[in-house]
Amino acid sequence: MLREAFYGARRFEQFQAHVGCARSLLSERLNTLVEAGVMQRVPYREPGQRERHEYRLTDKGLDLVPAVIALMRWGDRWEADPEGPAVEIVHRDCGRPVELMLRCSHDDVPLGARDVQPRPGPGARAVQSA
Amino acid sequence: MLREAFYGARRFEQFQAHVGCARSLLSERLNTLVEAGVMQRVPYREPGQRERHEYRLTDKGLDLVPAVIALMRWGDRWEADPEGPAVEIVHRDCGRPVELMLRCSHDDVPLGARDVQPRPGPGARAVQSA
Repeated sequence: MLREAFYGARRFEQFQAHVGCARSLLSERLNTLVEAGVMQRVPYREPGQRERHEYRLTDKGLDLVPAVIALMRWGDRWEADPEGPAVEIVHRDCGRPVELMLRCSHDDVPLGARDVQPRPGPGARAVQSA
Repeated sequence: MLREAFYGARRFEQFQAHVGCARSLLSERLNTLVEAGVMQRVPYREPGQRERHEYRLTDKGLDLVPAVIALMRWGDRWEADPEGPAVEIVHRDCGRPVELMLRCSHDDVPLGARDVQPRPGPGARAVQSA
């Protein structure tokens, strides 16, 4: 659903065409995303029609785009269609592919998964005592 | 589960301590990850004990680390504990925080979610005809 919204889907029928699940399940999923603050309902009305709603990503939802791109890239690398990715993510201004990179905040060096490690943060105690 | 593995969990009991679900469900989830090639079972034996297995991330699993970090960052920003993140991801060599950045592959400019767009890739026809 997030992926479809990121691809440009806004109206219920657009989500349905891409996701292909039952209307009731689709409706439930969209409601869950609205309740989570990831999508918002925006009213629209076409001539001669009753008012309807479309679904747009909020800032909170747009902020999931890096995670969606990371998962798409992973799928392209490990579960790839032999013809290549079905969708590429490009820089809107120049049309070239975008890259998602892990970097050190200090020296800007590109990092791999084995170069990083987790460390307890300031909220660690709150989690342990919960 | 992936997060716990990334944090260093390897043995069944370690996953259980962190995930806190029923043993049967935990076992089923670990099996699913092994079948997906994201984790592998590695035998070990402690003195006087029968052989057991621990679970380690494969390269395919490690390659999900950027997606896990992207989701953690999102959670830190939007569903944060008031005290701050429970876990920080740092560069192993220098201990400074790592950053996950979207960049243009051409001019290396940092990009936000509104600066990027999807475009049909080489595998797009295969998807549409499926």
